[in-house]
Amino acid sequence: MSGATDTSTPAHVEAVLADAASAAPQLAATSPTERSHYLRSVAARIDAEADALIDVAAGETHLEHPRLRTELSRTTNQLRFTAAIVADGAYLNAAIDTGRGPSGAASPDVRRCVVPLGPVLNFAASNFPFAFSVGGGDTASAIGAGCPVVVKAHEGHPRLSARVARIIADELASAGAPRGSLGVIYGRTAARTALLDPRIHAAAFTGSTKAGRALFDLACARPTPIPFYGELGGLNPVFVTAGAIAARGGVIAREYIASVVLGRGQFCTKPGMLFLPRDHGLDGILADAAASIQAGLMLNQSIHAAYVGTLVELSQHRSVRVLATGAPQHADGAVRATLLTTSIDQLEQNIEALSVECFGPSSLIVEYDDWRQLPDIASRLGGTLTATIHAEDDELEAVMPMVGRLQDLAGRVVWNGWPTGVAVTRAMQHGGPYPASTAALHTSVGGAAIQRFVRPVAYQDFPDSALPVALQDDNPLSIPRLVNGVLTTEPIYRN
Amino acid sequence: MSGATDTSTPAHVEAVLADAASAAPQLAATSPTERSHYLRSVAARIDAEADALIDVAAGETHLEHPRLRTELSRTTNQLRFTAAIVADGAYLNAAIDTGRGPSGAASPDVRRCVVPLGPVLNFAASNFPFAFSVGGGDTASAIGAGCPVVVKAHEGHPRLSARVARIIADELASAGAPRGSLGVIYGRTAARTALLDPRIHAAAFTGSTKAGRALFDLACARPTPIPFYGELGGLNPVFVTAGAIAARGGVIAREYIASVVLGRGQFCTKPGMLFLPRDHGLDGILADAAASIQAGLMLNQSIHAAYVGTLVELSQHRSVRVLATGAPQHADGAVRATLLTTSIDQLEQNIEALSVECFGPSSLIVEYDDWRQLPDIASRLGGTLTATIHAEDDELEAVMPMVGRLQDLAGRVVWNGWPTGVAVTRAMQHGGPYPASTAALHTSVGGAAIQRFVRPVAYQDFPDSALPVALQDDNPLSIPRLVNGVLTTEPIYRN
Repeated sequence: MSGATDTSTPAHVEAVLADAASAAPQLAATSPTERSHYLRSVAARIDAEADALIDVAAGETHLEHPRLRTELSRTTNQLRFTAAIVADGAYLNAAIDTGRGPSGAASPDVRRCVVPLGPVLNFAASNFPFAFSVGGGDTASAIGAGCPVVVKAHEGHPRLSARVARIIADELASAGAPRGSLGVIYGRTAARTALLDPRIHAAAFTGSTKAGRALFDLACARPTPIPFYGELGGLNPVFVTAGAIAARGGVIAREYIASVVLGRGQFCTKPGMLFLPRDHGLDGILADAAASIQAGLMLNQSIHAAYVGTLVELSQHRSVRVLATGAPQHADGAVRATLLTTSIDQLEQNIEALSVECFGPSSLIVEYDDWRQLPDIASRLGGTLTATIHAEDDELEAVMPMVGRLQDLAGRVVWNGWPTGVAVTRAMQHGGPYPASTAALHTSVGGAAIQRFVRPVAYQDFPDSALPVALQDDNPLSIPRLVNGVLTTEPIYRN
Repeated sequence: MSGATDTSTPAHVEAVLADAASAAPQLAATSPTERSHYLRSVAARIDAEADALIDVAAGETHLEHPRLRTELSRTTNQLRFTAAIVADGAYLNAAIDTGRGPSGAASPDVRRCVVPLGPVLNFAASNFPFAFSVGGGDTASAIGAGCPVVVKAHEGHPRLSARVARIIADELASAGAPRGSLGVIYGRTAARTALLDPRIHAAAFTGSTKAGRALFDLACARPTPIPFYGELGGLNPVFVTAGAIAARGGVIAREYIASVVLGRGQFCTKPGMLFLPRDHGLDGILADAAASIQAGLMLNQSIHAAYVGTLVELSQHRSVRVLATGAPQHADGAVRATLLTTSIDQLEQNIEALSVECFGPSSLIVEYDDWRQLPDIASRLGGTLTATIHAEDDELEAVMPMVGRLQDLAGRVVWNGWPTGVAVTRAMQHGGPYPASTAALHTSVGGAAIQRFVRPVAYQDFPDSALPVALQDDNPLSIPRLVNGVLTTEPIYRN
């Protein structure tokens, strides 16, 4: 890490914040069509510079080229997806009550749509240097919503961050976006200054529970508190029935290992716990599958050190048996999968020690005696981004209580699949009860992610030309609107 | 205040919380149709007992019978309105991506809808003993969403609270709702205990900024933070152009006074500041209108004392002139409207001292020289529930910058009207940037109020019968759903 991207000077932070604040009203005044164009332009430019960007990313993160190429595509697809959400205009939540109810009672003409919150501070993540970083989903959502973005670059890929930021800022300028729509700052001191600055109106974060909670606390304690969208993590437990093991135990074992090691286990959706019936008989397949995975370096030395530290503590717990081991103590060593096992009784007795999130390619297999033990232990594991069930069709009745329990704990429940891989679609929910997220009502991925950065405003008895265009009689944006309770793209005809 | 309703014992609080927690999964499992029925039943029962309830309310609040009758009707209409929102099912935000996109790329079947958050703690307000109390909007929204409710009764009307709670609990039981769907607790210690209890998953509050902020801080600092929907207040400034004064100054003056004294000024939407051009010439009409209002008692002695305290400080400020005075120092004295005036220069120089919210029938008239001074002073007044413009049609161009500024500061912007009176409609927004609300993305009144108490969950690759009914192929609830990006009530046909 060097020079300009090491840590921002106070003067640089001030300049970035001032630029964002001055861009805010201008960006807010652009149309959804314009902002959609900005996002598509940025996507095209990142695609055009993919080879060079991937080289920089590979040099900083130990992630391999194919993985980075996939992630870059996902990132530009996400920008285009957000562009489509913005252009569609449904996200504006336009609603119009003309005040002429069937009862004839006098009530005002009330019209509501959303407005951008103002400048947003995005904390980039370490593990997705494209998709959850400078040009990632949080940036796409915020700019799509009409909010300037200040990105706190992740110290794990500062050169890539600077390069992507330059590309985006250039491209936004060419596309006509106001200057200051995107800025980048470096270092924790700078981030803290920005988070506490009154010009910042919301913050988004993807990372550890500890860091996220500390930032959430700062955001809440401001004289004017702001929404803090922390996407933190969880154990992503997977619960497998005896029937599923009987029908396809080997496949489950191999797919599980593949999911655990995806991105070298550095996914917030990594399955951290696998619940198997005691007599699963899969130890051999699991150990072989773990050993067959190619070893590789973690994102950086500090993540490696944190991983090994947590893992050593877990492995040495008296209730835990090591089934496969693959984490060298030295920081430049390539890691393999590490599998630990315990029993459900031991987990119940040592729930605090054993239910820690371990960021890396390890997982804890918990052997249970009776499926009916699982709902209660699931509750004790707490909030999580995902929870997964593997079961056969004829087990549905026995499994349903577990579905009910898991939907109380997770943002996404997966059936006969694996939690890694978050589809960027309209229905996706990436979040969940704390500590999965500090804002369980929201998602950081998918069609609803933009909702984090807008706020509704009602306009009462306004003359048509003074209304935001989204709410004018003629519906100039041709967006869907809830008019007197009916969703329509039709204009309003005033009496 | 006496005995049982004075302050709840720890054992009572524990029993109420335990009942709410045990009701939660049962209430969550009811259908929207069932919950809609519960709310309509409660509305009918409150209407049936209106005379007796209004007598109790009048005895505790100094509010007159006609006002209370109107409020009770509003309350039962709000319960029916929420019932309609629930039955309609759009609030479930159902979205289905079947994973068969046009590109043919393999992506999972992802389906999202909302689930109830769990037991909600509602803090009742002093000023609307029906509409923002035990059977008020927050309770309607939470039960409609499928969340049991614990109400912290307001100390200003404990007997009414107990009576309404008994009626609602009885009626919910008769209608088939699970026991524990509504409980009431009394006193600040009990409320604090409940707010910090892990069985409470969200809280809603209507009241002062000071009290609301203290509770917000507690909610955020919990080991598991919860959403805290504080609807706190603001100055509700009204900005009047020279053109509007020329065209209808007298009418504006009289309507302003009527809005200030509505509910004896004890409305969170009371216009606390009126900006008039310096040469408005309305002092006489304003003073006469204020003097012509019948005097009356405030809600209770502590509110009277707080009002007088704030008012004395404001009135004695060297930059303020008293235009009409009507607040006796003794707590059992009937109050009239108090009008203070100052200049925009004085306001700018003394912004902290003069921009305090004063809960009662007073307002500060600010005389300005140039309309262009107003956007900046508006920003300095901070977040507010409402902001109002009075202008003539030919002044639109000059006024538009102010509209842009006010939508950044307020949850609702009113044109040529008055902020008091919050229509319960789908498009209403009652909230706004802090300190108007601790959750500016949400509203405590209107069709979107229910969204405060639900959370999205995504179900990935689920078998149809294991899905929530809202997401099953056949659409058994006949609700609108976003299917592959298109809103429809049609069923899904799987390949």
